[in-house]
Amino acid sequence: MNENILGIVAGILTSVSMIPQLVKVLKEKNAEDLSWTMILVLISGLSLWVWYGFLKNELPIILSNAFAVIVNVILLICCMIYKKKS
Amino acid sequence: MNENILGIVAGILTSVSMIPQLVKVLKEKNAEDLSWTMILVLISGLSLWVWYGFLKNELPIILSNAFAVIVNVILLICCMIYKKKS
Repeated sequence: MNENILGIVAGILTSVSMIPQLVKVLKEKNAEDLSWTMILVLISGLSLWVWYGFLKNELPIILSNAFAVIVNVILLICCMIYKKKS
Repeated sequence: MNENILGIVAGILTSVSMIPQLVKVLKEKNAEDLSWTMILVLISGLSLWVWYGFLKNELPIILSNAFAVIVNVILLICCMIYKKKS
């Protein structure tokens, strides 16, 4: 199997699995279950993966981790907005 | 920076960020917030990443995704045990 196709399918699956969490937080306007610290640790890790992908020149790694960074930055912003209110 | 060290640091950060979720579920014996479907999608995606890592012969990708598979299999088992009870 072509490695790039495999990586893209893997990336789509792991990306899709993050959507419900994001939708739930946006819909319920509640970020109680989320931890700032963990989101920050995760964003750092994912950003390093993007960097790793650039060094290795591997598009599937760059794309799926960049997507995950975006999702988690939105979650972090939700945390800041909704936790302040409560 | 050495790519492997970068990948290992990235893997440690993304792995660490999963632990609190696991600890919370094990401690509270409550898997209400977890979705079977999403965990299954995630396990499929992570397993493909492990496969991708083997094809590309990249240890950081294999190790961090294999760890994530284990965490999510435990979460899936918790889902099966705790949701049946409630």
